[in-house]
Amino acid sequence: MPGNERERMMEAVQAQMPAKRWQHTLGVMASAVELAGRYGGDPEKADLAALLHDYAKYWPTDRMERVIREQKLPQELLSYDKELWHAPVGAYAVQQEFGITDEEVLDAIRYHTSGRANMTLLDKIVCLADYIEPGRTFPGVERVRELAVTDLNLALAAGFDSTILFLISKGKRIFPLTVEARNGLLAMQGES
Amino acid sequence: MPGNERERMMEAVQAQMPAKRWQHTLGVMASAVELAGRYGGDPEKADLAALLHDYAKYWPTDRMERVIREQKLPQELLSYDKELWHAPVGAYAVQQEFGITDEEVLDAIRYHTSGRANMTLLDKIVCLADYIEPGRTFPGVERVRELAVTDLNLALAAGFDSTILFLISKGKRIFPLTVEARNGLLAMQGES
Repeated sequence: MPGNERERMMEAVQAQMPAKRWQHTLGVMASAVELAGRYGGDPEKADLAALLHDYAKYWPTDRMERVIREQKLPQELLSYDKELWHAPVGAYAVQQEFGITDEEVLDAIRYHTSGRANMTLLDKIVCLADYIEPGRTFPGVERVRELAVTDLNLALAAGFDSTILFLISKGKRIFPLTVEARNGLLAMQGES
Repeated sequence: MPGNERERMMEAVQAQMPAKRWQHTLGVMASAVELAGRYGGDPEKADLAALLHDYAKYWPTDRMERVIREQKLPQELLSYDKELWHAPVGAYAVQQEFGITDEEVLDAIRYHTSGRANMTLLDKIVCLADYIEPGRTFPGVERVRELAVTDLNLALAAGFDSTILFLISKGKRIFPLTVEARNGLLAMQGES
């Protein structure tokens, strides 16, 4: 991608979110590129997917809901936590805004919050980077960071564990795709 | 059901399991009948399903596996914890052994470990009785017992929480049906 195109996207993404979230995005980009280097992923795709992953994070709920309905994204999303919505909505939005067509990059954005069964290497990299970027402080993050040095699958499974434990502690519903993602990762521990 | 038929089944069930598990079965029967009374369930069906729920619990793994394969029970069971197998295998076995044909009773046996989406009242009663019968001592059981006095759905959701927390602590896979069951119960709290 030409440098000025990346610059333009960075400005456009930054304009969508508060300063703190932009710092988070920069952290996810750095962590994703580092993980790509460690586990044999494509650093350019990791950088791009990380840059764009939270594009729709601060969109109003009704705007996200409209996209989910009108673009025929999975309708079951609407009965789960709104925190999940920005990921598939963001994948749609960056196609429209920036003409992104790389399905690998779009999938990594689409599934960065929920995960999915049979995650690709890029899916895992972006999803794990989102858990461990330097600004993250949730209970258990240090354990996830430690595992990220040696086992991509186990580290990401531990990230999902923290999400599931959080949802249980709040009496909230657990998104089944996240459980399928975690199950798949546990079966693959040690691989990439 | 004639009394001598129930006697015969009780003897046959007892013969399938160690004394401690038979005590557990008697506890589940008592708790299931009590819950049926509290929440408007059928006490005879609750008693029967509870009596039979662990019929296949002590069958050898290869015998359970053979039933799952030959009787075309859901094959995905084979890639999850063996603890789940005895429930659907037991539902099959009691059809064969005792000629049980009541689908409501068979379902309550079939789903007593995993739960399922859209659980029936009898499903919930047997599953919750299995969590709270007097012999149970797992972490969190007191909370489940307290909730069982006032809210069947929330109590059973708390039972599933304890199972999910246990599986996470052991690094084991979570059966997606259990998550769907829990999600459904959280949506129904306060109802029966």
